[in-house]
Amino acid sequence: MLPSKGYGATNATEPLSLLNFERRDLQPKDVQIDILFCGVCHSDLHTARNEWGNTTYPVVPGHEIIGRVSAVGNQVGGFKPGDLVGVGCLVDSCQRCSACAEGLEQYCENGFVGTYNGEEMHVGGMTYGGYSNNIVVTEKFVLRIPDTLDPAAAAPLLCAGITTYSPLRQWKVSQGQKVGIVGLGGLGHMGIKLAHAMGARVVLFTTSPDKAEDAKRFGASEVVISKNAGEMQAHRNSFDFILDTVAAPHNLDAYIELLKRDGTMVLVGAPATPHPSPQVFNLIMQRRRLAGSLIGGIAETQEMLDFCAEHGIVSDIEMIRIQDINDAYERMLKSDVKYRFVIDMASLKQ
Amino acid sequence: MLPSKGYGATNATEPLSLLNFERRDLQPKDVQIDILFCGVCHSDLHTARNEWGNTTYPVVPGHEIIGRVSAVGNQVGGFKPGDLVGVGCLVDSCQRCSACAEGLEQYCENGFVGTYNGEEMHVGGMTYGGYSNNIVVTEKFVLRIPDTLDPAAAAPLLCAGITTYSPLRQWKVSQGQKVGIVGLGGLGHMGIKLAHAMGARVVLFTTSPDKAEDAKRFGASEVVISKNAGEMQAHRNSFDFILDTVAAPHNLDAYIELLKRDGTMVLVGAPATPHPSPQVFNLIMQRRRLAGSLIGGIAETQEMLDFCAEHGIVSDIEMIRIQDINDAYERMLKSDVKYRFVIDMASLKQ
Repeated sequence: MLPSKGYGATNATEPLSLLNFERRDLQPKDVQIDILFCGVCHSDLHTARNEWGNTTYPVVPGHEIIGRVSAVGNQVGGFKPGDLVGVGCLVDSCQRCSACAEGLEQYCENGFVGTYNGEEMHVGGMTYGGYSNNIVVTEKFVLRIPDTLDPAAAAPLLCAGITTYSPLRQWKVSQGQKVGIVGLGGLGHMGIKLAHAMGARVVLFTTSPDKAEDAKRFGASEVVISKNAGEMQAHRNSFDFILDTVAAPHNLDAYIELLKRDGTMVLVGAPATPHPSPQVFNLIMQRRRLAGSLIGGIAETQEMLDFCAEHGIVSDIEMIRIQDINDAYERMLKSDVKYRFVIDMASLKQ
Repeated sequence: MLPSKGYGATNATEPLSLLNFERRDLQPKDVQIDILFCGVCHSDLHTARNEWGNTTYPVVPGHEIIGRVSAVGNQVGGFKPGDLVGVGCLVDSCQRCSACAEGLEQYCENGFVGTYNGEEMHVGGMTYGGYSNNIVVTEKFVLRIPDTLDPAAAAPLLCAGITTYSPLRQWKVSQGQKVGIVGLGGLGHMGIKLAHAMGARVVLFTTSPDKAEDAKRFGASEVVISKNAGEMQAHRNSFDFILDTVAAPHNLDAYIELLKRDGTMVLVGAPATPHPSPQVFNLIMQRRRLAGSLIGGIAETQEMLDFCAEHGIVSDIEMIRIQDINDAYERMLKSDVKYRFVIDMASLKQ
């Protein structure tokens, strides 16, 4: 087994701390990676604290991983030592169901294997994530990171990036469309950048007037303060597509009624307690649609990385040391981050 | 003005009774129709009793109208006296907005004119519906009724038929798909017949085991008792499309989780009080969609009538006299109708 170390949680209430653990030895189709950077996603905190009730301890979070290949199995054809690579939210899936056949591993009918807190398919036990010095991942789930992307700032693309890119593509956001992004956090700021790069006219909805300047820098044409009913009403029936990145319960109708006929609002965050029930009338009157979307498949994640390289898009990040992860969690809970924490894993050696 | 008589309500609490009223004189583009039959829709009752809070009295309900042309204006090209015609839920729209330009008058951006309780666009006042001896409608909103359809049983096609046909077409229900219909009332029984004729494998969801036989006669392959959780679970992730015709508040998740990846559930009934809020998780996990749909446009209504003629589809009806309309309302409230009341308007002369 491969010795690893990283920061993780041994129960729901203690802070994350240094842990030693093991990963599987390199298998013929495996890529072994020295981790350089790992983004900090809200899911990491939910899992560390067992807020979804499904955590197996110890857990080592982290699924926005950038690193360099250190070794490859003898059946690996696409990667060699020294390559800059990424690993996102998934590290395995059944590869037999219709979803996997279509490259939609995130919807694997037998359940995908999460990068952490997932059931390891090769030697058993649980998967451990990217708050660590290394990781071993089957080649199929390893992404190529284009050279032109800043490696640290590319880390959040692997979750925040693909989670927003996938629905924008699935619902065919394109030149000339009017697209709303609800919420300016890690996901929202990527949503603005990506929708803008796809040619859409982007409107940010936020409760925080002080975020307007950043939103415009990211590519928003307009910022609407969602608490201002008059400002909201001015946009009635005008949006082709709205991407709602806010996981806290909120009034969906305020946005649904801004969609034009046949427009879709996609939710990418699942609230711990339900949103107020949306009014069916608002869906019926203009044949509007409400949908959900989960991360993205591996092929689409690679497409997103290449798209970001082509358009010069990365995340706005704040770099932290792994020793500061618990403080970062507290700041994340207050939305006090612009716009994603990324851990410099070199700090693990200090 | 054209003298008319019919049954209507003068306030929210009295039963419907015989009223005399006037319609506009025939305009150059108008078709004047002697009404033969009129279906009874739940919306009629809601409006008669002002349950949506928007009724202007007196109101004459009825928007599933079959009749014969008695006169045409001098600019009418498509109809002549004696033709068998229909009028549905709409009698006018702005004809200038993008929805009207696409033949989607039901989504007219300036508001369509309902067949009753609508604002009359030609001489002012309100529109009066089909519980009456005649009606005057601009040619554009008059439908041709194919000769092969039984005229009385064709009446409900003009609301219950098009309301179910339109979403089945919009979401491209076709050969080999698995389609769910929730609820076996006026809309549900049309939904089964139409989806079956489109080649789908149709499953009816109902709370009433005694409706199974009828559902199968209409074309359902299977009937699932929705209160039986085990029966429901057996259908998880298997439906391409579900049409929910139930307007009473109910648990949408029970059906949403039966959709396969990228499947859509469409609601055509708006409950007076909200449904329990659907779980976002169920939308996210398989990229499922929830949508609404409203009646259908005029062109699509004609298409539906021609489709019904081709496939020999009409509504299952119970014929009543206009004098029995108040009793019919009480029975409708108890779902005691198989599956749509149709008024024989000849009874108005008695």
